Amino acid sequence: MSPRDARAEAPPAATRPRVVVAPDSFKGSAAAADVAASLAEGVLRARPDADVVRLPMADGGEGTLAALVAAWGVEERRTDTVDALGRPTRARWAVSADGRLAVVELAQASGLADVTDVLPQPLLATTYGTGVVLRAALDAGVAEILLCLGGSATTDGGAGILRALGARLLDGDGEPVPDGGEGLADVARLELDDLHPRAREVRWRLAVDVTNPLVGERGAARTFGPQKGAADADLAYLDDGLARWAGVVEGVRGVDVRDLPGAGAAGGVAGGLHAVLGAELEGGAALVADAVGLADAVADASLVLTGEGSFDSQSLGGKVADQVAAVAAAAPARPPVVVVAGQVLLPASRAAEAGVTAAFSIAGGPASLAELVVHTPTRLADVAENVARLVLR
Amino acid sequence: MSPRDARAEAPPAATRPRVVVAPDSFKGSAAAADVAASLAEGVLRARPDADVVRLPMADGGEGTLAALVAAWGVEERRTDTVDALGRPTRARWAVSADGRLAVVELAQASGLADVTDVLPQPLLATTYGTGVVLRAALDAGVAEILLCLGGSATTDGGAGILRALGARLLDGDGEPVPDGGEGLADVARLELDDLHPRAREVRWRLAVDVTNPLVGERGAARTFGPQKGAADADLAYLDDGLARWAGVVEGVRGVDVRDLPGAGAAGGVAGGLHAVLGAELEGGAALVADAVGLADAVADASLVLTGEGSFDSQSLGGKVADQVAAVAAAAPARPPVVVVAGQVLLPASRAAEAGVTAAFSIAGGPASLAELVVHTPTRLADVAENVARLVLR
Repeated sequence: MSPRDARAEAPPAATRPRVVVAPDSFKGSAAAADVAASLAEGVLRARPDADVVRLPMADGGEGTLAALVAAWGVEERRTDTVDALGRPTRARWAVSADGRLAVVELAQASGLADVTDVLPQPLLATTYGTGVVLRAALDAGVAEILLCLGGSATTDGGAGILRALGARLLDGDGEPVPDGGEGLADVARLELDDLHPRAREVRWRLAVDVTNPLVGERGAARTFGPQKGAADADLAYLDDGLARWAGVVEGVRGVDVRDLPGAGAAGGVAGGLHAVLGAELEGGAALVADAVGLADAVADASLVLTGEGSFDSQSLGGKVADQVAAVAAAAPARPPVVVVAGQVLLPASRAAEAGVTAAFSIAGGPASLAELVVHTPTRLADVAENVARLVLR
Repeated sequence: MSPRDARAEAPPAATRPRVVVAPDSFKGSAAAADVAASLAEGVLRARPDADVVRLPMADGGEGTLAALVAAWGVEERRTDTVDALGRPTRARWAVSADGRLAVVELAQASGLADVTDVLPQPLLATTYGTGVVLRAALDAGVAEILLCLGGSATTDGGAGILRALGARLLDGDGEPVPDGGEGLADVARLELDDLHPRAREVRWRLAVDVTNPLVGERGAARTFGPQKGAADADLAYLDDGLARWAGVVEGVRGVDVRDLPGAGAAGGVAGGLHAVLGAELEGGAALVADAVGLADAVADASLVLTGEGSFDSQSLGGKVADQVAAVAAAAPARPPVVVVAGQVLLPASRAAEAGVTAAFSIAGGPASLAELVVHTPTRLADVAENVARLVLR
């Protein structure tokens, strides 16, 4: 048998391999669902018989809603509400296929990106619009609400959300305080009698991507206020307001959130909702992995593919690749985990410590960033095909 | 057991895996031995217990001598001779560790690169200098001579080599004809009485990287003459000379080499030595693979790594990657073959048809050619480490 002839032989028939494709989005280039589709295409080219499970992931920030919608195969819902400056907008959110879990992205209604058309108004910006969406979720009868924080225009400690859910914030004279971070300076009492009846029945989960506390130097105002347009004087005012607000909400369940890690997420929304509603702060990637059922999917997988725009030292801090690797490492089959990224900056040894078996860039040679962005889908598929040919022999 | 804990566990102990590292050079960037060293380093980072066999490869052209010297672990020899224009030079060549096989690169003494300091003299350029080296090889007592063709400055049909070995080229009057392609126009008789006594005893093998015939439109003169500085009138003169030479050498063994595929290699050296000495024309990569013992090395390998500067459609035409894949496919262990290249232009499916399991670029993200060249050693090691972690789990 000559070498050439030997190459024509097919490998022996094997059982149908399961491949889990669970990437993050490539920021600015491809949504997680698109990345997953490209990776799946490549795997199926290598092994048309493969059972490819697509689980687009997210780290709890932007794209989380889309990832869950894709994973659940449900349609997004839309609710008419207002943006952070009170202007009409429409926010997307979703309910899981079983109707149990709603996922809401704060940035949909209260995001910074939607109010950059006017001068920043950091004192007035409110999460009220997100509260309207959450009210719709409560009305939908879900048992659990997953609120993805990040990208907010607000520094109101979640006061707007609570107002939309029926709470009243009153000053020392029993008068309602103004909306936005501005009003927190005068708040003296939180009145919850008219709170949405289901607000205390559902389980609240907050996807948090920062560890900042509510107040102080590393707090919500001083750390994130400047990017929301707050001047120095505003920062002190907002920080004082959040501290005052912390005192008020502490009265509800006796929980002090001033120094709670993560309480500063989304202008203090995490702190406010934790204190008042007992909302649980969770790492976003872990939460998404849980919501999409990653552990079950990888249990008997032969290969797990994940990916993100840049695989670097930040990737191992609870981001998607890190989470996927951790879940895969706990799976009975202990499948290899391969990262396919726009750029790979981590040495293989460091990736391996985190459970990432191998990482490959989509770059096929010398190429500019623009070229890589343009060719991301085809390159993803090609690298995935190569990896699948190597692993699923 | 938490996911994090699971990741700390070592894989179960396995037998020591053999990894064969058999790359071509990265033209203009890294010699094959350096590429092999980088790939081996990466493999050993992933599996310090691996039995890594380095077999730097070549396709019969430039780098073949270096590859064989590296594989054999012998010192190069040097012989004082003349270049294609008759100026003193020193040519490197080598003898295998067992003393059986000499390898000589024609470009060492008769290369185009060494005569670009003066105006081209395509009619005068001669392979005599290479003949001097071959005479030294015969004197060394080898049983076999491997002459690597390619990169020549000459179009003399190997006449110079034969003269150096003792042959005499005579015109119709019995007078010696001038050296170089020019003399072929007058050659009427080849006198072999004084040929080196061992010239007909050794096995001659020619590494040929083209399929061009000796004469005609696709012949040595018309195809490769222009790049050697031959003007239009020269081309016709040289082509006529080669045709005349073919008639003369046909008298030696009765072999017509005018249309023999590959006979046009190195200005017709392949045709001349085939006709006169029975030299065998062989694909360079296959020949090198044979010389370095690739088949034995991969027989029980767990992984085979090869590589080249650009993995493209030309790579599958008998080049190194193609050859390594073919040899690996015939190996009992049928090890996966992974190409690590500066750029990967072939789709995975086409590579797979040739027996290449997977191909990855050394690019770790957006990068210019210059950046890739500078970082070739570290990138090679990193990609090899990733591949080894994936395959040798």
